[in-house]
Amino acid sequence: MSAEIICVGTELLLGDILNTNAQFLALELANLGIPHYYQTVVGDNLDRLKQVLAIASDRSQILIFTGGLGPTPDDLTTETIANFFGVPLIERQDVLEDIARKFAERGREMTPNNHKQALIPKGAEVLPNSSGTAPGIIWQPRPGLILLTFPGVPSEMQQMWRETAVPYLKSQGWGKEIIYSRTLRFWGIGESALAAKVTPFFNLSNPTVAPYASQGEVRLRVSARACSESAAKELIEPVAQQLQQIAGLDYFGSDSDTLASVVGQLLTDADETLSVAESCTGGYLGSLVTSIPGSSNYFLGGVISYDNSVKASLLGVNQSDLYTMGAVSKLVAMQMASGVRSLLSTHWGLSITGIAGPGGGTATKPVGLVYIGLAKPDGIVECCKYQLGQNRSRSSIQHASACNALDLLRRRLLTKHEQGL
Amino acid sequence: MSAEIICVGTELLLGDILNTNAQFLALELANLGIPHYYQTVVGDNLDRLKQVLAIASDRSQILIFTGGLGPTPDDLTTETIANFFGVPLIERQDVLEDIARKFAERGREMTPNNHKQALIPKGAEVLPNSSGTAPGIIWQPRPGLILLTFPGVPSEMQQMWRETAVPYLKSQGWGKEIIYSRTLRFWGIGESALAAKVTPFFNLSNPTVAPYASQGEVRLRVSARACSESAAKELIEPVAQQLQQIAGLDYFGSDSDTLASVVGQLLTDADETLSVAESCTGGYLGSLVTSIPGSSNYFLGGVISYDNSVKASLLGVNQSDLYTMGAVSKLVAMQMASGVRSLLSTHWGLSITGIAGPGGGTATKPVGLVYIGLAKPDGIVECCKYQLGQNRSRSSIQHASACNALDLLRRRLLTKHEQGL
Repeated sequence: MSAEIICVGTELLLGDILNTNAQFLALELANLGIPHYYQTVVGDNLDRLKQVLAIASDRSQILIFTGGLGPTPDDLTTETIANFFGVPLIERQDVLEDIARKFAERGREMTPNNHKQALIPKGAEVLPNSSGTAPGIIWQPRPGLILLTFPGVPSEMQQMWRETAVPYLKSQGWGKEIIYSRTLRFWGIGESALAAKVTPFFNLSNPTVAPYASQGEVRLRVSARACSESAAKELIEPVAQQLQQIAGLDYFGSDSDTLASVVGQLLTDADETLSVAESCTGGYLGSLVTSIPGSSNYFLGGVISYDNSVKASLLGVNQSDLYTMGAVSKLVAMQMASGVRSLLSTHWGLSITGIAGPGGGTATKPVGLVYIGLAKPDGIVECCKYQLGQNRSRSSIQHASACNALDLLRRRLLTKHEQGL
Repeated sequence: MSAEIICVGTELLLGDILNTNAQFLALELANLGIPHYYQTVVGDNLDRLKQVLAIASDRSQILIFTGGLGPTPDDLTTETIANFFGVPLIERQDVLEDIARKFAERGREMTPNNHKQALIPKGAEVLPNSSGTAPGIIWQPRPGLILLTFPGVPSEMQQMWRETAVPYLKSQGWGKEIIYSRTLRFWGIGESALAAKVTPFFNLSNPTVAPYASQGEVRLRVSARACSESAAKELIEPVAQQLQQIAGLDYFGSDSDTLASVVGQLLTDADETLSVAESCTGGYLGSLVTSIPGSSNYFLGGVISYDNSVKASLLGVNQSDLYTMGAVSKLVAMQMASGVRSLLSTHWGLSITGIAGPGGGTATKPVGLVYIGLAKPDGIVECCKYQLGQNRSRSSIQHASACNALDLLRRRLLTKHEQGL
């Protein structure tokens, strides 16, 4: 028994809108423990929608439609479904009255084409829409096959899903066994290197472990099928523990944790403060730090020293070092970190200087070369050099630079005692 | 002849990620005039992927795959395709060398499982990946059927699409009748208010005009169908001109223009410089400004004055004003703008202070209250107050604040002469 999501709308095929409905429904199905193997997008076209219906009703037992319930002639979902199963459409008086009432409430005239929205396949139940005019249906056109339809407007679809579809699916016995996942997050190790370390885990069946990577971050998703969230957590916990142990410091957090939130928690725990000095990231590191609510507890601010004059005047970077070593150098990164730490009187000072591109690279200092400086509570300053790759986009280099800076600070905060801090 | 998009990845079925790849490819296919009737999402599962392949190869002639090209055992796309068409996989020495070179460049160890990414179906061509390790393929397994595969990582997929797939598809005769669009971008006006001003344009047939909105920005997409880009542009131009005229200063740019790029161009044209002082945005305004290549020509840097001590010590904000008016006030915003302009000796100084939430709001100063200060070349400072709404997320308030700041500067740069600057 599995579900299939069918999103109807030419606007999806034209790329006008992002299919957020599919993601919402996918998460909801996982929460209810309903397996779900396919998603299909098809345009507002009767023949193609019928073909999709034929394929889906053959391989899946719960078909969830979004879109095509509007009042205009190109909204065909309900009509096509009725046609496919050879059942007539019935105008439902209660639905018509509900639509009329909503128009009156908004002081608008109901148009004749809204009558279409009151047509429901004979035998189907109405899936009420409390905010919009288009109701959906819940229908078992034959034993073992359930159809649910929703409008394409995300807010209406989500409300209808929660108010009516979830209770209905639970009444059908779903939601007893759920799929619950924890995502473990890693920085400083590539996907294949991490995968090589944890290969045996990929053969587990419950929980399962699957890797994926995005913008330099690697994730392992540990998913368990169980009768409750707490039972799933019990299955996940020992596996997650082992994976974290194997990864060591490359593991930084799970689920909604970010490098910035983890660094924030470590600074809060240590009751220490941070300031930043940014060149090629232009404020992006600060914006990551302050994306975390409550960051004012540990983040005092910083200097965007984009121009060399600002590096010298505000951060006290030595003019002759800027001239001889260049702004993108170990020495300058260290002076920036040390300078902002002194200027703002914080425990930690974190700096970034590099070449984000696309221009500005040379043979010895290519695009993607980044130095990160860290001035520590004892005043000692260290520097790490990164080669982020010459073919990456400017925004990707800026993102990776800021994440590497946060990661360096995270590692030092975690091993403070070993460093005598 | 039509194309079909097949996105492979269990993470899509679990709702872990939003399917932005399908939208990107849908837009690109429309630009090339390639009809496209179906999108399918399927998990990392050999049998189900084979079934999808059977259905898709029966109804579509260009199959575009994303995902499942990684180094781990659950990455099955290439293997499944070869298996479906009964063709062996060949290890390509040139691909292997390219992967090895990329690992070396980043100073990382290549693992044995990366060898998998050099396996290509016999007879297929390599679709090179200039930034990541996973190449795709271009393959005609039988006459009249073209397969293209891409990794799931959006940045890599998009680069590969533009560099190789588009020229290839054009060489196959596509892109002759094209759909070409220009997106007009607006800031400072709501979607319904703009729609009300331009209603008659929504009835045009070639070009068509369609509105959409995202994160405070409103867009009108003007799309023409024509035999060439230049013919399409001729259809679009007069309509775009009229729309821009109706919108006045609320129109800020088109297509890939952003508020930051437009402000950058205006500053470059005027040969003037900018500095920023940020409180609640924590560096985000600076990161938007420096997201533009070449921003070093006009952006000197700034101060992230997150803590009040930094507002006073670096920007010279009056301590008693901070105490009596509060950090989120007109007076402080103006002093921040003026302070950073003096400190960095720039023509313009732009400041933001506000309450990004979720905490920190009061009855008189609710979450979403933001003041933006602008110190102008003549030293005069102005301030705008914004109520961005208490129910918005922290990141949404930070984004809207930075955009409003850029928009204020843009409007003043455009009307400099009227202000006697």
